[in-house]
Amino acid sequence: VIRIIDGEGGRATSRLIKELFLKRLSNPLLKPLNDSAVAELTSSRIAFTTDAFVVDPLEFPGGDIGKLSVCGTVNDLAAAGAKPVLLSAAFILEEGLELERLERFVESMAETAGEANSIIACGDTKVVPHGKGDGVYITTTGVGVLPGGDIPEPKRIATGDAIVISGPIAQHAAAIIAIRENLRADPPIASDCAPLSNMVLDAMAVSEIHAMRDPTRGGLGGVLIELARQSGKRFVIRESEIPINEAVENICELYGYDPLFMACEGRMVFILPETEVDSLLVSLRKYPYGKGANRIATVEEGSEIIIETKSGGVRRLVPPEGAPLPRIC
Amino acid sequence: VIRIIDGEGGRATSRLIKELFLKRLSNPLLKPLNDSAVAELTSSRIAFTTDAFVVDPLEFPGGDIGKLSVCGTVNDLAAAGAKPVLLSAAFILEEGLELERLERFVESMAETAGEANSIIACGDTKVVPHGKGDGVYITTTGVGVLPGGDIPEPKRIATGDAIVISGPIAQHAAAIIAIRENLRADPPIASDCAPLSNMVLDAMAVSEIHAMRDPTRGGLGGVLIELARQSGKRFVIRESEIPINEAVENICELYGYDPLFMACEGRMVFILPETEVDSLLVSLRKYPYGKGANRIATVEEGSEIIIETKSGGVRRLVPPEGAPLPRIC
Repeated sequence: VIRIIDGEGGRATSRLIKELFLKRLSNPLLKPLNDSAVAELTSSRIAFTTDAFVVDPLEFPGGDIGKLSVCGTVNDLAAAGAKPVLLSAAFILEEGLELERLERFVESMAETAGEANSIIACGDTKVVPHGKGDGVYITTTGVGVLPGGDIPEPKRIATGDAIVISGPIAQHAAAIIAIRENLRADPPIASDCAPLSNMVLDAMAVSEIHAMRDPTRGGLGGVLIELARQSGKRFVIRESEIPINEAVENICELYGYDPLFMACEGRMVFILPETEVDSLLVSLRKYPYGKGANRIATVEEGSEIIIETKSGGVRRLVPPEGAPLPRIC
Repeated sequence: VIRIIDGEGGRATSRLIKELFLKRLSNPLLKPLNDSAVAELTSSRIAFTTDAFVVDPLEFPGGDIGKLSVCGTVNDLAAAGAKPVLLSAAFILEEGLELERLERFVESMAETAGEANSIIACGDTKVVPHGKGDGVYITTTGVGVLPGGDIPEPKRIATGDAIVISGPIAQHAAAIIAIRENLRADPPIASDCAPLSNMVLDAMAVSEIHAMRDPTRGGLGGVLIELARQSGKRFVIRESEIPINEAVENICELYGYDPLFMACEGRMVFILPETEVDSLLVSLRKYPYGKGANRIATVEEGSEIIIETKSGGVRRLVPPEGAPLPRIC
């Protein structure tokens, strides 16, 4: 298990880093274990993003905190139109954490970073006393490179654009609820947690995308509210077009959650000209993570979000005070 | 105080970010609050580093966790020879943390980042339940730009080089011990915590530096042991030349700590040709953080670290199993 001494920067720390982290994450940038990794990027225009992960529980169907921490950062870079290149990982370990668990998380990180063609180029490890943490907290930060020219930005959203989501919503949050509530679905609801950069880079190659955002904390609803505000446009959502799995819908109904505000960890929202939608959908649906992609809304002049409900009604979408679930990421 | 709802990604989170973080950290990159910051760097060759900060206590003479978290990252970039440009900050807040304290830490970060000519370009905030954290943990990650050509690297260390430290050692650790042990020195021992990038960039302009390292966790001794190993050289240290304040020395003696392995947070170790030492010392001593700079050792053929003690003896320097103090950074 992890001991306080493992975080003090002496021989114990070096051993932990070499035997556990370096073995799984090894790459030419990390290997020298210098204070900084040095890299030559293919472009001087970069995207830069950070996220702390405190998910509870640390493991869930479809992923674990390691996979989640890489997906979150990779997807934030992808949403900016950037190709992920370098990731950093800072671990706050709780005294008493089993080494085997930590190994699994690091393994997940290595695998997911590899899938996204990125590397974990630098890291840090601290240990806090038993009770002052919750197994492990991971902060991942990413650097991605951007091409020249226009990049996706909310201010490019235009009247007449359409809104597409890459797959069923609310799945990550539902997976976490199911495990917390001890629901035994068969098969269990799995998190959608996935690194989307390859799919997104391909999508950008075939269609001109005005804006992108990954609907994590705050869910699809939260992202749409923010994008409507940032662009000064009115969005009209057709609820019946929003993809959602039946088991997820049932769980939300059972516990009184609105799936529109429940986190995804492997979905992307695209806003783009109506004429580009078909080629985007064809491109997305080639990927396992994009099979459920669908056009869900239109952009109009105005300033609010309207949702046409399945029952034929119309309501304004307003943000909840908090999201319904703490510590889902 | 911080509530669980402040970390859930709804309106409460937005308010916290806008009213507390954005007010103090405001800059054009952070302001749009997109998932990623987008920046055009002056060079595509970068240094990249991350550190998690879990210091206990959160405030101490000479600094607080906010200042420390920026210094640690800025100094790691400086040690790589890079000019700090972009920083990210991820906060893991404990439910119940007073907003006024958090404000002070964020203020310290803004001030210290400004002193280092860098900005906090992106961030994240999570909240963990009371008892699952320790007030606040901060992870800062930094991107710095590097010039073309040779950069400081351990493999450039050559026989005949000299080793310089930029000021008195062990001060950060001693300040933390003093506060933990309730020692009432007057004036209190202050941490040396400082952003060194301006001083280091000037030093690099006047002298050819083979290697640099900031002696944080593990202290001067830890850094020298690592550099000797990485370069395959023998270092001969003259203990009497190592700058140390008397109050710091007394505290170390009182509690049985070896100051050589005690953390600094505002010092840099330089290894450079003997002929360059004088110009380096002149340059360093112009800065308040470099007033106590001194030449402390020489590099020879061989493979161990020898210390010539004040009492005239000679001993081999070996790394301790852990550093003597948990959670000093």
